[in-house]
Amino acid sequence: MSKQTASIPKGTRDFGPQVMVRRNFILSSIKSVFKKYGFLPLETPSMENLSVLMGKYGDEGDQLIFKILNSGDYLSKTTQEEIDAGSRKLTRKISEKGLRYDLTVPFARYVAMNRNEIAFPFRRFQIQPVWRADRPQKGRYREFFQCDADVVGTKSLICEAEIVLMIKEIFSELKIEDYAIKVNNRKILTGITEAIGATGLDSDFCVAIDKLDKIGVDKVLEELKAKAFTSDSLKALKPILELKGSNDELLAKLEIILRESTVGMEGINELKSISRLIESFGNPVQEFEIDITLARGLSYYTGSIFEVKLNDNSIGSLSGGGRYDDLTGVFGLPDVSGVGFSLGVDRIYDVLDRRELFPSEVFETSKVMISNFDESSMEIGLKVLSQLRSSGINSEIYPDSSKLKKQMNYADKKQIPFVIIIGSEEIESGLLTFKDMSTGVQKMISVDDIINQLNQQH
Amino acid sequence: MSKQTASIPKGTRDFGPQVMVRRNFILSSIKSVFKKYGFLPLETPSMENLSVLMGKYGDEGDQLIFKILNSGDYLSKTTQEEIDAGSRKLTRKISEKGLRYDLTVPFARYVAMNRNEIAFPFRRFQIQPVWRADRPQKGRYREFFQCDADVVGTKSLICEAEIVLMIKEIFSELKIEDYAIKVNNRKILTGITEAIGATGLDSDFCVAIDKLDKIGVDKVLEELKAKAFTSDSLKALKPILELKGSNDELLAKLEIILRESTVGMEGINELKSISRLIESFGNPVQEFEIDITLARGLSYYTGSIFEVKLNDNSIGSLSGGGRYDDLTGVFGLPDVSGVGFSLGVDRIYDVLDRRELFPSEVFETSKVMISNFDESSMEIGLKVLSQLRSSGINSEIYPDSSKLKKQMNYADKKQIPFVIIIGSEEIESGLLTFKDMSTGVQKMISVDDIINQLNQQH
Repeated sequence: MSKQTASIPKGTRDFGPQVMVRRNFILSSIKSVFKKYGFLPLETPSMENLSVLMGKYGDEGDQLIFKILNSGDYLSKTTQEEIDAGSRKLTRKISEKGLRYDLTVPFARYVAMNRNEIAFPFRRFQIQPVWRADRPQKGRYREFFQCDADVVGTKSLICEAEIVLMIKEIFSELKIEDYAIKVNNRKILTGITEAIGATGLDSDFCVAIDKLDKIGVDKVLEELKAKAFTSDSLKALKPILELKGSNDELLAKLEIILRESTVGMEGINELKSISRLIESFGNPVQEFEIDITLARGLSYYTGSIFEVKLNDNSIGSLSGGGRYDDLTGVFGLPDVSGVGFSLGVDRIYDVLDRRELFPSEVFETSKVMISNFDESSMEIGLKVLSQLRSSGINSEIYPDSSKLKKQMNYADKKQIPFVIIIGSEEIESGLLTFKDMSTGVQKMISVDDIINQLNQQH
Repeated sequence: MSKQTASIPKGTRDFGPQVMVRRNFILSSIKSVFKKYGFLPLETPSMENLSVLMGKYGDEGDQLIFKILNSGDYLSKTTQEEIDAGSRKLTRKISEKGLRYDLTVPFARYVAMNRNEIAFPFRRFQIQPVWRADRPQKGRYREFFQCDADVVGTKSLICEAEIVLMIKEIFSELKIEDYAIKVNNRKILTGITEAIGATGLDSDFCVAIDKLDKIGVDKVLEELKAKAFTSDSLKALKPILELKGSNDELLAKLEIILRESTVGMEGINELKSISRLIESFGNPVQEFEIDITLARGLSYYTGSIFEVKLNDNSIGSLSGGGRYDDLTGVFGLPDVSGVGFSLGVDRIYDVLDRRELFPSEVFETSKVMISNFDESSMEIGLKVLSQLRSSGINSEIYPDSSKLKKQMNYADKKQIPFVIIIGSEEIESGLLTFKDMSTGVQKMISVDDIINQLNQQH
């Protein structure tokens, strides 16, 4: 074998130990809240049949699915004509599987396939990588993790209330405080199009107002003008998009505007119910904020729409979701309503990193390293190590008899907070030198005292 | 969209909630031992450049790598000639990336790429899926998890001793007791070829004796005869392969047989050191068993070789590993010695499942379901739910006001151990009906008593 330069595919990442430990801190906080609310884990295969994936994400999405080449002599089943038809058509002949593009379609496929075994309402969470053949750029990867929780098989708005409570609990665990859980309802958006005389145009409407934050009211109105919106309807729309006020004030104003729209009033009543249900839980959620301009662009949602944003707007949404009325219809299981949300793990990581909110205690790495100079110190070291580990303390011995400096550098680089030194003096006295790597302070104490001190810290 | 039958690619699996909870029980037992021994997690991307993967697993391995089709108009860069050259040659033109085939090559690539940041000796564990385009059959999947732990950058035999201790600790956590940790050394195998006058034939030797368990001594000798082994050397080999005895007895006999082989004696001394180091830790390991016929077929290993097998031989090896002297040489970083082992998570799952060793307490699912009949019972239910969750109890309310039978069936199917019923009587008395689903016994008690009872159980 010739020597090669080691390289990693564009848009993908290695997660080294320090990053892994921090990601795991985020994920285990999230998982513990999911479980507290009755959600259980599901994992689906990385590959799905292309028949399952294609046609679910629009034309552009289809292009961005990573396709896996059939194994064996895949060309033997193709004709020259099929090859001449070009890449796109040939792909269908030489590739039958693709990499998961999101977690929603595999989840729908799972529910449809296992409809007879599943206990509905089915609450599942799923944390797995997805792949998109997108052009890589800052913050956009070709492999990234999604973290979804959904309940399917019920229309109960208790689920919506619980999603708001779960988001609050997760962010509180992560010590993120300055955020809003924005909530809207697709029915309100439809109601608005009815109220302004633009009935039937809600798809265009959702796509356009999704950009409100980025381009402002005037550009949104311009975009709608380019579609089939009349100037009368746009004149009526502008003050609606500019409505301000508390949740109650907004709902009161909206009730007047949408009074003639049955679907719009349904949306308002759902929002009111969710708000009341949250109160019934007994924990007020200050962060719950009705935002009637929230659309999330997806024609997919049919009821509630959620989005979580930092108040300082320093990063895109940290979470989003909503209710959909027909998750599994395409797989032959109609009328399964569900509601779910997704957490942006990469963005949450960035926020915690920037704000130095990761626990300072390096909680998974070894708490102690035992140094190693010669046969006799090592012999003692191994016994001490055994005692530490029996007491549940993550610990290690430096495996080679090297210079102290080298061993200390290692402990430092690995952020091991304490080092035990066993020299001739220690062998005579039976006490160990116990060094705190952050302060540099060292003292001679017994193994039992070391164990007590480390266990108390935890 | 037309309706489709939901299907899953051959050789892949969904892991539903019950299986996930059990797999997580296994993996968290393993991870906690890894961390106790100073190992930290690493994750590498699912895709690697084919230049990194190809040529590392032999010709057959290269064929079994799942290749990913280049995105966009991949055919535009190929000529008719290249297409005519057939699938195998065309693949190089239309595919640049493949799915990870194992965890070792990506780990070597990671170490080579990050040599300046890594604190050596580097201990990492890695638990991720790998993909092989193998013919699917019982117990063999196209997507399956590997679970590896390695230390690289040291030749210290303390690492070998710690691997034996870790295996013992992991199996003890999982309550598997009747197994042997078989250990050999590649140098002993080389020594044997020297002693029987078959110097230089150790590759053939390793491949053949790897099948000893399956085909027996005579067939192994036959196979070696078909290679370049003389009948004199086979006559000398037979009694060696049939050596029996305790670890000490085996080593004593072997010392006589290999006395003229420098490398063979090195192997014996390494085994002795490992054995002594394990004793130094102060925990005798009865399961540690020297097996001089252990080869694991891989020409890859240069020192110690490990394998874990159940005493009843009811399943293949549950773990295996060894020392390799040149992990990263192919990526331009020579002289990195390492030792590692891998746990067969699927097989361990099967053993625990067959023996009913999974904890009977369903430890991740909701502990309590609150039933839901009407508005007023629901209002109370939500407050109770809040109290349970604040006390750290995984719990849920049935989201719809349905018939009690339907709600009970749900709790039963989801294996929720307790149900709280709030009817008109309960609303009057302020007490709740608390039903134990396993015994059917129910009593009227307060929320506080329920919380106390559930928290004590844990």
